[in-house]
Amino acid sequence: MRPIDDAVCPASSFSAAEREAVYHAIMTRRDVRSQFQPDSLPDDLVTRLLTAAHHAPSVGFMQPWNFILVRNAEVRARVRDAFVKANEEAALMFEGERRQAYRSLKLEGIVEAPLGICVTCDPTRSGSVVLGRTHNPRMDSYSTVCAVQNLWLAARAEGVGIGWVSIFREGDLKEILGIPDHIEVVAWLCAGFVDRLYEEPELAVKGWRQRVALEELVFHDGWGQQGR
Amino acid sequence: MRPIDDAVCPASSFSAAEREAVYHAIMTRRDVRSQFQPDSLPDDLVTRLLTAAHHAPSVGFMQPWNFILVRNAEVRARVRDAFVKANEEAALMFEGERRQAYRSLKLEGIVEAPLGICVTCDPTRSGSVVLGRTHNPRMDSYSTVCAVQNLWLAARAEGVGIGWVSIFREGDLKEILGIPDHIEVVAWLCAGFVDRLYEEPELAVKGWRQRVALEELVFHDGWGQQGR
Repeated sequence: MRPIDDAVCPASSFSAAEREAVYHAIMTRRDVRSQFQPDSLPDDLVTRLLTAAHHAPSVGFMQPWNFILVRNAEVRARVRDAFVKANEEAALMFEGERRQAYRSLKLEGIVEAPLGICVTCDPTRSGSVVLGRTHNPRMDSYSTVCAVQNLWLAARAEGVGIGWVSIFREGDLKEILGIPDHIEVVAWLCAGFVDRLYEEPELAVKGWRQRVALEELVFHDGWGQQGR
Repeated sequence: MRPIDDAVCPASSFSAAEREAVYHAIMTRRDVRSQFQPDSLPDDLVTRLLTAAHHAPSVGFMQPWNFILVRNAEVRARVRDAFVKANEEAALMFEGERRQAYRSLKLEGIVEAPLGICVTCDPTRSGSVVLGRTHNPRMDSYSTVCAVQNLWLAARAEGVGIGWVSIFREGDLKEILGIPDHIEVVAWLCAGFVDRLYEEPELAVKGWRQRVALEELVFHDGWGQQGR
């Protein structure tokens, strides 16, 4: 085994062009519902996306995630049905015009996208006491979300659109995919090639909600302190 | 207002070099505890990192996050004290050799890093019924975690190291920073320039836990189905 100090190596900042590429992925990433092309994603590309996800930070290095790749159209149709049921329940939670606006939005591309990726979190992955999770039991699912975001940004660079669908009864997804009780479903991702994306988040373009000014969200040294 | 279709624009995949830069950020990002340089981070750089965070996906475009930038050394010393207290509680949860190993790890750089960033989630940001959160109440904090991961990758490209510290009693952080009861503390991030990073995650280098093979984590069309 090499001495530990040897494992620390020079890590410079990126060139301007490289930095720009990272920001370009971050700023142009979209939650895609309608622009998916039907072509299936090559296996090596999917492996690159999953490798990116697998290199997310995880609490205590527990790597609590699993990835269920769903290409089977029949399975995706059942998942879509589970969405439709939950989405009708969701619509009824909104009132008046807002309900109408909600119903006019297309919120998923489960069947159109050639690949579904169910991302799960196994809280038992490395025993009951986990370094870094001792005081915040949600840290394992937070690690799993970091994996989702890594995958999403890698996908943008590959010309692949991702849509995160969260309108399900978790039990329905578990039943369809045979997921054990103790596993948490974190995300259903629709994945497929795209060559067009919204310039701004679709919900902003469609008037649902606008971007908040960053300055309003930043405080200094304590909550609510906006001057510096 | 422009027609909605105009808001969809060509979005090609990245050049090979740009794609490589995105993967380089993802693969070489580390959870930093010890390599921070003391120089303060320029304001325009911090704004770029926060802008990256603010462009994370959020459920119903609710943008539930706030960022408390903590440069004040006294405040950071109090936060470090809160960590020390929680970390001693944490150590006692491990048994025997594992406890000794736990105590030998340096798990934070709260005082050494010139900037602390407390990232919070406001579940009330856009009313009680939120598009996409209707069936999963955790989606707002998951959006906030996506913001953390965006910031982390942008920081890597800027030559800035980030360490996520999660070993706190949430109430201690809220008291120190004056955070209201209804706000969730999602992350305390230590941020500072770095010019050296671990080649592999520090917990792997130090023998705490090793990387799982990706193949073991990937299923096809249903839980546990590893053949394709």
